[in-house]
Amino acid sequence: MSHITPIMSAETAKNQLSNPVFLCVLSNTDTCRIPGISAAGATTELNDYTPAADAEIVEYGCPRSAPEMPMKEGGAPTPAVITRAALQLTRIPYLFVNAGLRFVPEVPAIDLGAKPGRDIRQGDAVSRPDAIYTSAYQVGSQIGKLSGTIVIGESIPGGTTTALGVLTALGYNYGVSSSFSANPLEIKRDVVRQGISASGITVSDAREDPMRAIASVGDPMMPAVAGMVAGIISSANAGSDACIHDHDIILAGGTQMAAVYAIMKHLGLDTDRITIATTKYVYQDRSVDLDAVTQDLGCRINVVDPGFVDSRLPGLRKYDAGEVKEGVGAGGMMYAAGILGIDRKTMLGKVEVVYEELLTGAHTK
Amino acid sequence: MSHITPIMSAETAKNQLSNPVFLCVLSNTDTCRIPGISAAGATTELNDYTPAADAEIVEYGCPRSAPEMPMKEGGAPTPAVITRAALQLTRIPYLFVNAGLRFVPEVPAIDLGAKPGRDIRQGDAVSRPDAIYTSAYQVGSQIGKLSGTIVIGESIPGGTTTALGVLTALGYNYGVSSSFSANPLEIKRDVVRQGISASGITVSDAREDPMRAIASVGDPMMPAVAGMVAGIISSANAGSDACIHDHDIILAGGTQMAAVYAIMKHLGLDTDRITIATTKYVYQDRSVDLDAVTQDLGCRINVVDPGFVDSRLPGLRKYDAGEVKEGVGAGGMMYAAGILGIDRKTMLGKVEVVYEELLTGAHTK
Repeated sequence: MSHITPIMSAETAKNQLSNPVFLCVLSNTDTCRIPGISAAGATTELNDYTPAADAEIVEYGCPRSAPEMPMKEGGAPTPAVITRAALQLTRIPYLFVNAGLRFVPEVPAIDLGAKPGRDIRQGDAVSRPDAIYTSAYQVGSQIGKLSGTIVIGESIPGGTTTALGVLTALGYNYGVSSSFSANPLEIKRDVVRQGISASGITVSDAREDPMRAIASVGDPMMPAVAGMVAGIISSANAGSDACIHDHDIILAGGTQMAAVYAIMKHLGLDTDRITIATTKYVYQDRSVDLDAVTQDLGCRINVVDPGFVDSRLPGLRKYDAGEVKEGVGAGGMMYAAGILGIDRKTMLGKVEVVYEELLTGAHTK
Repeated sequence: MSHITPIMSAETAKNQLSNPVFLCVLSNTDTCRIPGISAAGATTELNDYTPAADAEIVEYGCPRSAPEMPMKEGGAPTPAVITRAALQLTRIPYLFVNAGLRFVPEVPAIDLGAKPGRDIRQGDAVSRPDAIYTSAYQVGSQIGKLSGTIVIGESIPGGTTTALGVLTALGYNYGVSSSFSANPLEIKRDVVRQGISASGITVSDAREDPMRAIASVGDPMMPAVAGMVAGIISSANAGSDACIHDHDIILAGGTQMAAVYAIMKHLGLDTDRITIATTKYVYQDRSVDLDAVTQDLGCRINVVDPGFVDSRLPGLRKYDAGEVKEGVGAGGMMYAAGILGIDRKTMLGKVEVVYEELLTGAHTK
């Protein structure tokens, strides 16, 4: 685990984030309705509500419009509780981005005008990814003028399968992580094979036109994140003193963000100042090889050990057993919190409070 | 005209805006469909498209989804061209806010989940203004952590009539401005009388509960702006070093922003660092008494003279004759440009270029 950054330790340099902001991209893909694919909702039928519920948990501490908790009964909590805890401790400002939601949460969100993604088995997963990219680019080019450190997370049930789709289409074989402790990787591979076959896309097609890979077997979160990143980068090159010239962009997530990183590489974006930050629970998943991502694509990956094994709450200890692992930008937000000097014990304590408030309904804004 | 600030002159202090951002609130009210009320669209029927078209002109230089220009044939151009010019010159970042749009533009916007406003003659103009306020508050509390100077503009056809409604409900008699050179103030007063009568609201009701005044005879832009301002102010008091402690809030508009200011006063908000900035075309409108707004409510009003009388383009010279006058935050954005050292001649030249591109279709992003 050579890439694990010793974050949340006394040695961490403090206050190195320049006017940071957290962007949380919310999307749906019908791919999550394939049985056995995603553990992101209470049941497969309720997966569609997960991104809306996650946004409401980040904002209010509990779901409002969503009918149920975005987690299994008795299972590990949604990573939204981690993200909420990190946002409360760091006070980093955040904005939600609606990039193809089926259900809109009771939370203001920047609407990119995207439609939810379709089941990738038909090979026609995303309508107009270029339009989503363009819309997201506009948002990024404005946010990039305000902020020097942009952390981008996501909530999209079924997203590791679409990540596997795009990585496979692009010719990479890293595997992907899962919100299940037992990763249904073979089901995912089969789904991806069907989608790639139905679309007829080849590796050279995909590498030449990554938007086509998204359109075939991806999801709407991908062009949203890639477009925002491109817009952020563009804002540095606009030749005005009013602009921030060096942006640090932290893709907060595991294999889904590796897929977005691969897309950006093949789009020819300057990825110099883009890093991935995720949890050690993803890094340790034997279904995925993040070291290969670093070696192949040159992407620096910061791995955070949240130390949930020491939690007094059984639900959080399940992260250590491989449940849920990551999501809603949790890993990246813990990474940012660590840079700002928040230690592991403080972070865990806050996550426990937020989680208990969610369970008991004693949440406060 | 004692309140005219000598903006866009060589004496102007430069670079006094702290990480500025422009928020452009887009709303509809069916009040604009009352014949003779608004000149904001090509025809009364097309008024509904005006905010969407304005947003597209700011973003792209021309309308995209909207079917026609948001201006009369041969008339003065929409102030969106001024706002676009000021944003291009200053490179101030901007975000659109959807606060009750009937038609959503092809531009990303923060969706507050608001519904368009109804005709105020029925005295039941806005549904759940408190929910719009709360949603906007959330946005403001995040933006306030990123930016120290927030300029807030609006595009809502019929908005001076709803402004008259709320000002009248609150017991103020300042008159309001108009996008017509001959202000149909008597029609507006009659509409407002009908609305106040239908709602049964009294001045003491309205002063005690300004949200009720909005619900009765206001529009959805009002709780959106007031809520964002309240959220911005709240972000300064959150006790973290990461936050900006002093915000300058510039309400970019004429009598509509005076109405929002009055609402905020009666909500008990701290208005110390809130100013209004508008054009001299509003200030000179004999239908409105901005000096009385300053005297009664203590609001500082900065008045910008754009010098359009000197334009080589007849459409812009019509501003000097009282057409259009203001909107889409144009006055406030010219004020911000002036503070940043952009002189009147440079500003006018850029407005002329943007206007000509709109007329000829030669716009570029």
